[in-house]
Amino acid sequence: MASNVTVAIDAMGGDDGCDVVVPGAELAAIRHPQYRFILFGKRERIEALLASAPHLRERSNVRHSDVAVAMDDKPSQALRRGRGRSSMLQAIAAVRDGEAQAAVSAGNTGALMAMAKFVLKTMPGISRPAMAAVWPTLRGESIVLDVGATIGADSRQLIEFALMGETMARCLWGVDRPTVGLLNVGVEEIKGVEQVREAGRILREVALPLEYAGFIEGDDIGRGTVDVVVTEGFTGNIALKTAEGTANQLATYLKLAFTRTLMSRLGAFLARGAFAALKERIDPRKHNGGVLLGLNGIVVKSHGGTDALGFATAIDVAVEMARNGLVDKIAADLAEMNRHLGEARPRQVA
Amino acid sequence: MASNVTVAIDAMGGDDGCDVVVPGAELAAIRHPQYRFILFGKRERIEALLASAPHLRERSNVRHSDVAVAMDDKPSQALRRGRGRSSMLQAIAAVRDGEAQAAVSAGNTGALMAMAKFVLKTMPGISRPAMAAVWPTLRGESIVLDVGATIGADSRQLIEFALMGETMARCLWGVDRPTVGLLNVGVEEIKGVEQVREAGRILREVALPLEYAGFIEGDDIGRGTVDVVVTEGFTGNIALKTAEGTANQLATYLKLAFTRTLMSRLGAFLARGAFAALKERIDPRKHNGGVLLGLNGIVVKSHGGTDALGFATAIDVAVEMARNGLVDKIAADLAEMNRHLGEARPRQVA
Repeated sequence: MASNVTVAIDAMGGDDGCDVVVPGAELAAIRHPQYRFILFGKRERIEALLASAPHLRERSNVRHSDVAVAMDDKPSQALRRGRGRSSMLQAIAAVRDGEAQAAVSAGNTGALMAMAKFVLKTMPGISRPAMAAVWPTLRGESIVLDVGATIGADSRQLIEFALMGETMARCLWGVDRPTVGLLNVGVEEIKGVEQVREAGRILREVALPLEYAGFIEGDDIGRGTVDVVVTEGFTGNIALKTAEGTANQLATYLKLAFTRTLMSRLGAFLARGAFAALKERIDPRKHNGGVLLGLNGIVVKSHGGTDALGFATAIDVAVEMARNGLVDKIAADLAEMNRHLGEARPRQVA
Repeated sequence: MASNVTVAIDAMGGDDGCDVVVPGAELAAIRHPQYRFILFGKRERIEALLASAPHLRERSNVRHSDVAVAMDDKPSQALRRGRGRSSMLQAIAAVRDGEAQAAVSAGNTGALMAMAKFVLKTMPGISRPAMAAVWPTLRGESIVLDVGATIGADSRQLIEFALMGETMARCLWGVDRPTVGLLNVGVEEIKGVEQVREAGRILREVALPLEYAGFIEGDDIGRGTVDVVVTEGFTGNIALKTAEGTANQLATYLKLAFTRTLMSRLGAFLARGAFAALKERIDPRKHNGGVLLGLNGIVVKSHGGTDALGFATAIDVAVEMARNGLVDKIAADLAEMNRHLGEARPRQVA
């Protein structure tokens, strides 16, 4: 287990760029004195902010870049931007070159995925990378993947997602045998699309190194029925955003209800501790950080609109993955999967 | 517009059968003296319950059946059960035979869909029926379809869903030009799966009789960005259940937060009006009733675990559809669609 982790940070990504990124990294540096940082962005701006970030300043290098990837850049545009001198690309390249063990960016998601794939390359044995989100549940947290790195997945890719998600769960929470479920429209074996049924059959019948718990339905995600929820990127993205939308909707209803009458306002005032506890529990900043899985290196996407606290969470996720050797563990699991699926392997993906 | 509507009711469906169904129909009969009912189930049981349902008793006939479809029947089993003498099948047959204008059941969803398709047949010009759900939003209510009648949909089927959902919105809410959105993983034209992009292109370019608002994302559903949300059944089912799961999760958090301390309990007591308002707003019984669209007749699925109030809502939905001529309106829209898509029609579905 690596004890010193250096994190490459795209200081130009996100809605507020380095105004959020630098204070966020400072928070992570205060909590974890063993982290080291390389900050990519406008040197002058970053150094001005480092003046009030003493912990970070002590443990970071600044690499100048004045090329930012725009939030509306197409992936191909982003890759070419400034002839590869964008802060995002340089942060990822630092992982490829071994200077850093993980990269974090709050920038354009599509650009980040395309660049990460281009610079780090997909791991041998993986058909496509996936984006994994940490999802708060009634039992704690679960990992859901893919939440939109790619669209569609055949049975083999779903099994790869299962293995990668399971490994991420072990790295992130240190649990021994996280449970894995396939997202479907019913729990019976005959339900759903063919790829999901086929993946379920293989996971049941082949002794892969993971704890397969069967099919789960949409309402099982929030319930925390399994540790790792596997689905293809279109459905995963829609599930994630639908849940966000529902949470926002209920928060709005709650606010409306408690400001209706003088009595309800008084009640809300007395129960302000309860509101604080509720807010704390559903705080999206505590579950920030989408992990790109299946690449030769660790890249974490922070929400573009988060604040310093949220950005620090994304850094923590990146460091946990690096410290616990995510990439090597996935490689080992893949080797085992390939031994097992040598015969049972479904149609090969080009 | 038909003024007298007769509703065929499967009195054996749902977790509690006629113990919920009969009081539910009584509630609907009290609110709407113009409704008439045919109740299918065990005559003796129903008549005993009618003794305390005077409004319903006055306006209903009972047709005896002692064959119930089991909640775990496969569709093929359900169809054959009791040689077609099940209460569910008879209720649907009453619509086919013109005795009733709509059927309502709280029974086995898969069986209901298969039977409705078998008995009523799919409308000419429709490739597959869809199940539409009424979804509470920050702006009121939206219709989401398909929430699981079938799995997968090509561009032509998505357009059929759009037309049918739009017609349902007009029948249910009396609005003139409800807006329609395609559920996708981004709002740009290049995003998402091919079928969705192709459906979007046709809806933009061809002057179909509906107000197309473009792509929407998962979080737009709860926001109420459009009146009608169109997606294929796998994604729609997972979105619906994920939202239900998230709502349950937040309700649990809320309860935990407000019972934490004496002060928060006191606050909750003072704000009990606010809680009541909140509960009222998210009450699933007020949004009960999945409508099967694309058949030669109206069939509404009530949630199996609902109570009398919820069942009455499903009856109201069924009657609104019947009163406003849903099936004829869909037929008219289809004819117009076929005129427009004569040339632009994508690959034909077998």
